[in-house]
Amino acid sequence: MVTNVDMSQLLHGTELLKRGFAKMQEGGVIMDVVNAEQAQLAEDSGAVAVMALERVPSDIRADGGVARMSHPNMIMEIIDTTSIPVMAKSRIGHEGEARILESLGVDMIDESEVLTPADPFFHIPKKDYNVPFVCGCTNLGEAVRRIAEGAAMIRTKGEAGTGNVVSAIQHSRLVSNEINALCNSTADEANAAVDKIMEGFQKLKDVSEFNINPSITPFGTMEDLRNDVVDVFNEVMKQKRLPVVTFSAGGIATPADAALLMKHGMDGVFVGSGIFKSNNPKMTADAIVLATHHYQDAKIVAEASEMMGEPMPGLEIGNLETRYQDRGY
Amino acid sequence: MVTNVDMSQLLHGTELLKRGFAKMQEGGVIMDVVNAEQAQLAEDSGAVAVMALERVPSDIRADGGVARMSHPNMIMEIIDTTSIPVMAKSRIGHEGEARILESLGVDMIDESEVLTPADPFFHIPKKDYNVPFVCGCTNLGEAVRRIAEGAAMIRTKGEAGTGNVVSAIQHSRLVSNEINALCNSTADEANAAVDKIMEGFQKLKDVSEFNINPSITPFGTMEDLRNDVVDVFNEVMKQKRLPVVTFSAGGIATPADAALLMKHGMDGVFVGSGIFKSNNPKMTADAIVLATHHYQDAKIVAEASEMMGEPMPGLEIGNLETRYQDRGY
Repeated sequence: MVTNVDMSQLLHGTELLKRGFAKMQEGGVIMDVVNAEQAQLAEDSGAVAVMALERVPSDIRADGGVARMSHPNMIMEIIDTTSIPVMAKSRIGHEGEARILESLGVDMIDESEVLTPADPFFHIPKKDYNVPFVCGCTNLGEAVRRIAEGAAMIRTKGEAGTGNVVSAIQHSRLVSNEINALCNSTADEANAAVDKIMEGFQKLKDVSEFNINPSITPFGTMEDLRNDVVDVFNEVMKQKRLPVVTFSAGGIATPADAALLMKHGMDGVFVGSGIFKSNNPKMTADAIVLATHHYQDAKIVAEASEMMGEPMPGLEIGNLETRYQDRGY
Repeated sequence: MVTNVDMSQLLHGTELLKRGFAKMQEGGVIMDVVNAEQAQLAEDSGAVAVMALERVPSDIRADGGVARMSHPNMIMEIIDTTSIPVMAKSRIGHEGEARILESLGVDMIDESEVLTPADPFFHIPKKDYNVPFVCGCTNLGEAVRRIAEGAAMIRTKGEAGTGNVVSAIQHSRLVSNEINALCNSTADEANAAVDKIMEGFQKLKDVSEFNINPSITPFGTMEDLRNDVVDVFNEVMKQKRLPVVTFSAGGIATPADAALLMKHGMDGVFVGSGIFKSNNPKMTADAIVLATHHYQDAKIVAEASEMMGEPMPGLEIGNLETRYQDRGY
């Protein structure tokens, strides 16, 4: 029984509740789905949540052009079908889309680099919302910036739509190594790290004719923002990990990939194109859920691997026209 | 009842009247139309004005080559059909086209980077005209130059014909951050900012064999021009915003996009290709007008979003052959 809880902290939209909701996904697989039928398949396979979107990342990549929020009808159809949480994507910095998704009642918003970024300087001020957000990161600084902005969950960006796990591993190794190194740093080194993290918010300066730092941010003054960054940074140093649930995403296509990322200490995995671009989505979904749950048992991961048909075809990161992981910073 | 007004200030073609006309568009949507039928659709959907042109920006972009003022018959047909104000585009610095448009009786001229620029150094001396002008800007300096030249209305340039809102957001963020930073600047810093703004008028120097500053400008001497720039600059610092109605343009394709720009403090939006390149122009026009009027109400913006069919297909800014936003400075 829970005791000594400040009940005011349990109200709709608090940080505690938003991070708590994200924590309920821990250890699980979140799957991209484009219709109600796929959402049902994901739920039946044991997905902890679905990401509702019009096209999986590999199709967005193939189509090119501008990728925007999905049509509300498409998202509502999935919300009406499935009983597990439904997430949906907004463009980076697109408060117009995020407010629509919140009002539709999605359970979590992914401020995602898979869609075309809307704001070249800032992300969404996520503390202003009642709905929790998940954001991507390629390294520790990016993760700290997103959490300081209010993200309740972090995922590595990886390289979505490629079926190539190398970027997801790069991002997970960077985050854990940067945390480890900074935990053993001097006070001066830690301050320098905070300065470095703050630089990510100052890109407007690079294109200003007057070379000015941004003074109007969606998050208040730069000083407010620095205080938030320091708070998150201190929390990271204390917990020796990110203070929010941290999933891996971007390129996971096989049970072995999912098990690998879990071994890296990730709290769960997003599988985007990997399931519905494989030749047998139902078997792939079952196999990846099995491997994620039993990543420490090689025999079970091997069994999951045996269940598989053909995984999705993959892409070399070096040959891509657009690297989604470079969007946002 | 209006009292104590100096009636001489209300004469045809004064700055007061030109800026006042622009102010009547505030809070609304201005739509690109290529024929009388589209103009009627725009009017029925609640557009506050139409921009009459032969091809929407995405077609101009696809066609390439030189884009010029539209045929007078095409403009007159739209003027004769619709009862809302009709705007038309002239090339940057093309006084030949601008005088034609004025004589045709258009309500406002857009000196537009979407057409091929005619003058590499100077814009049109807009104070010499009775008709009001709207001009594009990418940052504060450009906006101040255009207002000093006589523009009665400013719009962000964005990147026309792409359905990609990121440049419009960049320009709106730059203008507001530059105004904010300069409002808190020292006298020396403000003078340096005026020097920086004046550099935009001195590009002729870069190609002169003798490296000389222009002494013949459409606006009088450089000293006259500097005085005008200082006047506008002071007005900006006093009002903490541009002293003319400021719309957003270039890449707006969905109700969410329109709502986003309004949230950024824009006074209204231009929608070019976004309406008639969508799969259902009437629904898109209705939806974007609804979202613009109710941008602060997420539920209504969500409803507007549900009304939509397919928005126009979009383009990545990084892959463009020609960036219209780089035309003029």
